[in-house]
Amino acid sequence: MQAAILGAGVIGAAWAARLRENGIPCTVFDPAPDAAKKLADVLDNADRAYAKLTMAQRPQTAAVRLAATMGDAVRDADLIIEAVPERIDIKLKVYAEVEASARPDAIIASSTSGFLPSDLQAGMKHPERLLVAHPFNPVYLLPVVEIVAGKATSKEAVERIMAFLPEIGMKPILIRKEIDAFVADRLLETLWREALWLIKDGICTTQELDDIMRFGFGLRWAQMGLFETYRTAGGDAGMRHFMAQFGPCLTWPWSRLTDVPEFTDELVDLIAGQSDAQSGHMTIRELIHARDDNLIAIQQALKANNWGAGKLLADYEKRLFDRAARADAITPGPHLIRTTERRVPVDWADYNGHMNEARYLQAFGDATDALMRIVGCDADYVAGGHSFFTVETHIRHLDEVRVNEVVTTETQVISGAGKKMHLFHELRHADGRLLATGEHMMVHVSLVTRAACDPLPHVARKMMELAALHAALPVPDGLGRSVGMKK
Amino acid sequence: MQAAILGAGVIGAAWAARLRENGIPCTVFDPAPDAAKKLADVLDNADRAYAKLTMAQRPQTAAVRLAATMGDAVRDADLIIEAVPERIDIKLKVYAEVEASARPDAIIASSTSGFLPSDLQAGMKHPERLLVAHPFNPVYLLPVVEIVAGKATSKEAVERIMAFLPEIGMKPILIRKEIDAFVADRLLETLWREALWLIKDGICTTQELDDIMRFGFGLRWAQMGLFETYRTAGGDAGMRHFMAQFGPCLTWPWSRLTDVPEFTDELVDLIAGQSDAQSGHMTIRELIHARDDNLIAIQQALKANNWGAGKLLADYEKRLFDRAARADAITPGPHLIRTTERRVPVDWADYNGHMNEARYLQAFGDATDALMRIVGCDADYVAGGHSFFTVETHIRHLDEVRVNEVVTTETQVISGAGKKMHLFHELRHADGRLLATGEHMMVHVSLVTRAACDPLPHVARKMMELAALHAALPVPDGLGRSVGMKK
Repeated sequence: MQAAILGAGVIGAAWAARLRENGIPCTVFDPAPDAAKKLADVLDNADRAYAKLTMAQRPQTAAVRLAATMGDAVRDADLIIEAVPERIDIKLKVYAEVEASARPDAIIASSTSGFLPSDLQAGMKHPERLLVAHPFNPVYLLPVVEIVAGKATSKEAVERIMAFLPEIGMKPILIRKEIDAFVADRLLETLWREALWLIKDGICTTQELDDIMRFGFGLRWAQMGLFETYRTAGGDAGMRHFMAQFGPCLTWPWSRLTDVPEFTDELVDLIAGQSDAQSGHMTIRELIHARDDNLIAIQQALKANNWGAGKLLADYEKRLFDRAARADAITPGPHLIRTTERRVPVDWADYNGHMNEARYLQAFGDATDALMRIVGCDADYVAGGHSFFTVETHIRHLDEVRVNEVVTTETQVISGAGKKMHLFHELRHADGRLLATGEHMMVHVSLVTRAACDPLPHVARKMMELAALHAALPVPDGLGRSVGMKK
Repeated sequence: MQAAILGAGVIGAAWAARLRENGIPCTVFDPAPDAAKKLADVLDNADRAYAKLTMAQRPQTAAVRLAATMGDAVRDADLIIEAVPERIDIKLKVYAEVEASARPDAIIASSTSGFLPSDLQAGMKHPERLLVAHPFNPVYLLPVVEIVAGKATSKEAVERIMAFLPEIGMKPILIRKEIDAFVADRLLETLWREALWLIKDGICTTQELDDIMRFGFGLRWAQMGLFETYRTAGGDAGMRHFMAQFGPCLTWPWSRLTDVPEFTDELVDLIAGQSDAQSGHMTIRELIHARDDNLIAIQQALKANNWGAGKLLADYEKRLFDRAARADAITPGPHLIRTTERRVPVDWADYNGHMNEARYLQAFGDATDALMRIVGCDADYVAGGHSFFTVETHIRHLDEVRVNEVVTTETQVISGAGKKMHLFHELRHADGRLLATGEHMMVHVSLVTRAACDPLPHVARKMMELAALHAALPVPDGLGRSVGMKK
C-alpha cells in the first residue's frame, strides 16, 4: 500500500503522520516553500504521540517523501488524499491534474470540511473513485472520519475506504445523505456561532467559555455523545422522558439562532485578545503537546473501561499485538530475549520527577506478558481458560528514568518446568544504563478454578525449550536477593 | 455547615450526594412519593463513584435526611439549594415559603438552567441572598457551576458561593451579565437544535451522531474548550489566523440556524427509536455507571497531565491530603499503622479478571507515601528538595482481589536510621484475607543532587521513634524472603 497526500497543511501533514506511523509510505506534494518544515513538525509531534499512545508493536515507521510534482506524488498511489485549501476551483484543478497521472483505480479521498462530493467529482474522468473522507485535527490522534459518497461514487470505493481506515486505528462513519458541512462541522459551526455572540455581547470571555466546556459538557462528550448523554439524564424513563421534558425549550429564546454576528475587525480583536490572555503563556507547540498528551491520556483512560474511543484503541492494539505475535521471529538461542521497548509515558512520572516505583513493576509485567506470548500463552490461550499468575516479585530499583526516555527489557528464563516459570528481567535505558532488575515467579493456573495446574503441552514444551537454552547463560547479578541483603 | 436541598430529582439528589461525600450534612425536601427511593439511588451512585474518584481521605460521609416539610428542611441551613421543576411560578412560591422559615442570611442558590436571577428574586424579602448556581448532571462528578447574580444579589453572597464551591471540588464560573440560559445551555441548545435537524432529515442516526462526537470533537473538548482548540489549530499564527481562515464560513449555509424543527410525535418516535437501537442493550443504571466510570477515568487521566478538570481534581485532593495530614491522629505505639484504605479502582484489573500485578506495587507505593507523610516527608518537604526513593522491593502476591472490593494496608517500620528506612506492608481484603506483603528499602535523597543524604532532623527523629516502637512487634511472616525460597 502506498499513499499520496496533496497539501502539507495541518490536515494533510497529519494524514501523512498517521499513515507513516502505521507503516504506510506516503508521497506528499505541496508547492509552499515552507512545506518541508511544516510537515517535519507534524511528523515529530506524531512520533512523540505514538510513543505514548500504545505499547503495541506497530509496523516499522514508513518513509514520507516530498514529491517535486503532483504527478510524481500520485503516480504509484493506491490512496490519494486531497487536503488542499477549501476552494472548489482549486480542488477541481487538482483533480484534473491527479487524473492525468494517477492509476484509474486509485481512490481519491477529499479532506474537505464541507463541499458536496457530487460537486467535487462532477468533471472527473473516473468520478466513481472520489469520495469525501473528512478527518479531524489532530488526524494522527482523533479517530473519527466522516465518509461521504457523491452521486457518482462507487459502492466499491466506499467499501474500500471503510475497511481500510480501522486498520490505521480510525473510526469511519458513513454519512447517509450529502449535505453541506456534513454532520460534525454543522454541529461545530452552530456552537461556534453562538459562542461568538456570547463573547461579542460580553456575557463571558473565551477563557470562561472554554472552562464551562472542559469542566462540564466536554467531559460528557468525550465518552457519550449528545443523545446517549440525554438518554442517561432522562432517568429510567430514558429518551422519551427527556424529550418530553426539554422539547418545549425549543421554542424558548435560548440561543441567538436566528441571526449570526457580523465578522468585524472589532470581533476578531476582542477574541484574539482574550485568547492571548487565556493561552498566551504557552506557545502553540506547547499547546499542541499538551493537547496530544491529554488526548492520549483520555483514550487510554477510556481503554481501561473498554468504552468508545478507548475500546477502539484496544481493538487497534489487539490487531497490532496479534500481527506482532505472528511475525515474532524470536530465534530461540542462548541469548536474552528483547521483550519490550518503549518510551516512558508522561503519566508514569511521580512527584519525585521520575518514573514511579510501581511503573517498574508495570514495565516488568509487560515484559512477562511478552514472554508469555512467546511461550504460547497469548490472548486465545487466556480466552481458553488458562494463564500465568505472578506469585512473587523482587525488584532492585537501581537508577532513575524520566518521561519520554526510551527503555527496553531483556528477559532470561531461569527455570520453566511443571506449573512454575521463574523469570529475570533487566530494564535498561537506551544509553545502556541498567535501571532495574525484576525477578518473578509465575504459576500456571486455570482461570476457571483459579488454582494452579499444568500448562497445555505446547506451552509446557516451549517453556522448557527456552529454559534449557537459557541455562547456558550466566546467572544474572542479583538473582535470589532479598531486601536489604548485603552484596 | 448545613445545607438544604429542595427537590430530589436528578439535580437536587446529586447536589445532596456531592455535599454529603464532602462531609456536609443535608436536609432534603421533596413531596414526591418516590423521592426517598430516587434520592437513595443517586447517593448510591455517588458512593460508588467517590470510592474510585480519589484516594484522598475525605471528611466522614455526612447524613442526608428527608424533611417532612420545606420549613423543616431550610430552618437551620446556611446554604439552600433550590432544584424544583423549571416553572417560574413554582420557584417563586418555593422562595416565599423558604423565606418564612430560613435564616435571613442563608444563601438561596437556584439550580435553574435558564431563568434570570433578577426575575427569580423580584418578590423576595431578602433578594440579596438569591443567586443562580447552575450545575451539570452528574453534579457529583462534573465540576462546573455557572454562577449568575441578579440585580439585587449582594457581592457578599457571590463571594461566599465562589469561595465555597472549590472546597467541594467544583469549578464556579461567574457569568458577567444575566442572559436567558446563561452560557452552557445556550451552547448545548444550539447544538441540540442542529442535531435534531440532522436526525429529522435522515443525514445520520443518533448513534452515528454520537460517534462523530465521542470519537471526534468530544475528545478535544474534555481538555480544551472551543477557543483554545481553535487557537491550537491555527498553527503558529494562532487565533487571528484561525479566525481569518474560518470567518467567511459564518455566512455559508453550514447550519440550519435560521429555523428550528417542529417538535412532533414523529420526531420523538424517530429519536426514541434510534436511541433504543443505540443504547437499549444497557439499562439506564448500567449507562450511569459506565458514564461515571468514564468521567472518573478521564479526570484521573487529565490529573496525570496536571490539566483542566484533572488539575482541579489534584488541587481538591491536595486540600484533602493536607487536611488529613493535619488531622492525622496517629497515636504512636507498638501497633501496625493503617496507611491506606480504598476500593480497587476499575482500571486496576487486567485480562486475568483481577487486580494487575503492578497495582500491588502501586498499593504498596501509596502505603509508603502515607507512611512518609506520617514521618514528616510531605508535599512541602518534597518541594523543599528532599524525598525518599525506593531502592528495593519484594512482593508476595498471595491472593487475588477484584475491582470494587475494599483493601487496606497496614505498615510496620522494620528499621529507620540514617539514610535508610525499611518498611513492611500487608495488603488485606476487607474480609481479612492477606492478599500480599510488600517489603521495601527506602533511601533518603536530595532531589537536587539525586544522591543519598541524611533526612532533616524532624524526619529522622520521627523515623527512629516509629522504628523503636515497632521493634516490639513480631517479625512479619515473609520478611527477608527471596524469590522462590523454600518456606
